Amino acid sequence: MSRIWNFSAGPAALPEEVLRQAQEELLDWHGAGCSVMEMSHRGKEFMSILDQAEADLRELMGIPANYKVLFLQGGATQQFAQIPMNLLAGRSADYIVTGSWSKKALKEAQRIGDVRCAATTESSGFNRLPTAEEIKLDPFAAYLHVCTNETIHGIEIPAQRIADTGVPLVADMSSHILSRPVPVEKFGLIYAGAQKNIGPSGLTLVIIRDDLLGMAPLTIPSVMDYAVMAENGSMLNTPPTYGIYMAGLVFQWLKKQGGLAVIDAVNAEKARILYEAIDQSAGFYHNPVDPDCRSRMNVPFTLAQPELDAAFLDESKAAGLVSLKGHKSVGGMRASIYNAVPLAGVQALVDFMNDFAKRNG
Amino acid sequence: MSRIWNFSAGPAALPEEVLRQAQEELLDWHGAGCSVMEMSHRGKEFMSILDQAEADLRELMGIPANYKVLFLQGGATQQFAQIPMNLLAGRSADYIVTGSWSKKALKEAQRIGDVRCAATTESSGFNRLPTAEEIKLDPFAAYLHVCTNETIHGIEIPAQRIADTGVPLVADMSSHILSRPVPVEKFGLIYAGAQKNIGPSGLTLVIIRDDLLGMAPLTIPSVMDYAVMAENGSMLNTPPTYGIYMAGLVFQWLKKQGGLAVIDAVNAEKARILYEAIDQSAGFYHNPVDPDCRSRMNVPFTLAQPELDAAFLDESKAAGLVSLKGHKSVGGMRASIYNAVPLAGVQALVDFMNDFAKRNG
Repeated sequence: MSRIWNFSAGPAALPEEVLRQAQEELLDWHGAGCSVMEMSHRGKEFMSILDQAEADLRELMGIPANYKVLFLQGGATQQFAQIPMNLLAGRSADYIVTGSWSKKALKEAQRIGDVRCAATTESSGFNRLPTAEEIKLDPFAAYLHVCTNETIHGIEIPAQRIADTGVPLVADMSSHILSRPVPVEKFGLIYAGAQKNIGPSGLTLVIIRDDLLGMAPLTIPSVMDYAVMAENGSMLNTPPTYGIYMAGLVFQWLKKQGGLAVIDAVNAEKARILYEAIDQSAGFYHNPVDPDCRSRMNVPFTLAQPELDAAFLDESKAAGLVSLKGHKSVGGMRASIYNAVPLAGVQALVDFMNDFAKRNG
Repeated sequence: MSRIWNFSAGPAALPEEVLRQAQEELLDWHGAGCSVMEMSHRGKEFMSILDQAEADLRELMGIPANYKVLFLQGGATQQFAQIPMNLLAGRSADYIVTGSWSKKALKEAQRIGDVRCAATTESSGFNRLPTAEEIKLDPFAAYLHVCTNETIHGIEIPAQRIADTGVPLVADMSSHILSRPVPVEKFGLIYAGAQKNIGPSGLTLVIIRDDLLGMAPLTIPSVMDYAVMAENGSMLNTPPTYGIYMAGLVFQWLKKQGGLAVIDAVNAEKARILYEAIDQSAGFYHNPVDPDCRSRMNVPFTLAQPELDAAFLDESKAAGLVSLKGHKSVGGMRASIYNAVPLAGVQALVDFMNDFAKRNG
């Protein structure tokens, strides 16, 4: 068996160490005589897995005691609706649109209620953050929604740009959660689909401040009411147990790496060498994003000669570098370099890119 | 490693053969160099897994071409709301209540719209089906909802009791889907959480007739609109890919067993020997359900001397027979004997029960 370097945007690479442990425990978890997949979610074995996962996540992210951690289903896309269903309470909300995902969040929220676009950089092709002057906030908004890392356009909001605006801040962190320390206390609600930096798809993480619970009308589905799910410890109904188990293994792996400060430094170095390869290619490769907000997780780039795209993809794949095709809406290439892609994988990509440019430049 | 006999109501036993294949493929699926969990859901590898799973399910259940198969999230509990959100279209719907789960479905639907109880057997302790005279149907109902197998009360609606009432029939089959052939064409919508007879929790199956698509208002979440999910082949957003893979392995295992007619006969024999052990115990064990509608998947029973419950549970566990404690709402014991629990497992339980009765009777 030969493992590839996997640059998929999600579902995405998982740490090999985590997969090996899952493999070993697949038919018999800790002597229970059955797989985690086969366990009652209300039994003491699974409850210990769930409790450990939550405790490890709280430790990793430094989640304050006045926040609940919910393990849900439906992905970020379900959250796009669930957030306004819970938090609008008859009011309006503001959305800052910095790429495809925040645009989708806004569009979905518009099905549910009265929400408005407080700023968008679409006219510039989503290659920068809006300036302070461009952002028109409603001081009476129920919340302000941002996507702190845009998976498709490769834009990340630096932590120092997260300011208190006086209304609860709601953030889609799907594609960079756990990649760096986050000041959780600045947010009212943080959510993330698991399939990038947490675990397999089908698990959705919501971290919500206590005062935002209990605002939903009684007419929304029970499973979508954050307060109901919080009261039931994410177990109103059967949660995605195996996804939670895998996420727990990833959290333990992150702790073993040294936590988010250490993984942050590794991610910074991975991104540095990849952007350097792009920027120093004398125009052979190009990333359009303002260097102030380039994502360290999703690095889109184009070739100056698009007729070389097919050769780039074929040859990189042959070299064991997989899933580099860019999203269809932007074209070109994209390397997603989540936590589980080690520096060696990014170095292998950089070496390939330099060689490819030399041979075709 | 020693595998237990697992009588959990769900998440529940999976075929050992399926788990072994999953274990073998965990780090490298068919030479792809990565786990199924790490694959892009839109790549050709995962698309082949999804397509094969759907084709195998269609073959196993004989699903007509005018039905869509959807692989969703949120469990049956989310469907309890999603069904009226999609199908009511301003009308009312009828619910037949035969146990805890159909009662929950009714209660959840009442959050969403105008639905009514067309019959309930709650006053008799949910130990029988309602008679034809007891069922008061609204001929103008948007649909009629039934739960064809009640996991907690151990009641199963026999196929011959499924009659055409002139309105679309919607059925929660979570705990007995794939346990026997089903006349799919008699139903408008069939749904099931995966964690009993299909695969790991976090995957929800919906089988819906084409004419019931497109009735949802534009104000419900996109991921909950059956028509939108059908148009997108269950991929509006990232589906629970690993759950779909595991379900696909279970479908292939079922085909290898000989399909639903063969598994039907095995299940009939498993249920026969277990109910026989209960009924011939001279009152030591008791199952309260009318023999005409006893579930072949979930067999609740009580001991005449409840002071022996703890010893029964301790000794059965020591004998490798696990998760036999009854649901807290009914007490006593429950043996869930889904497809993946072989006749040998049920025989081991019966032998233990006979021996326990002899020693304590």
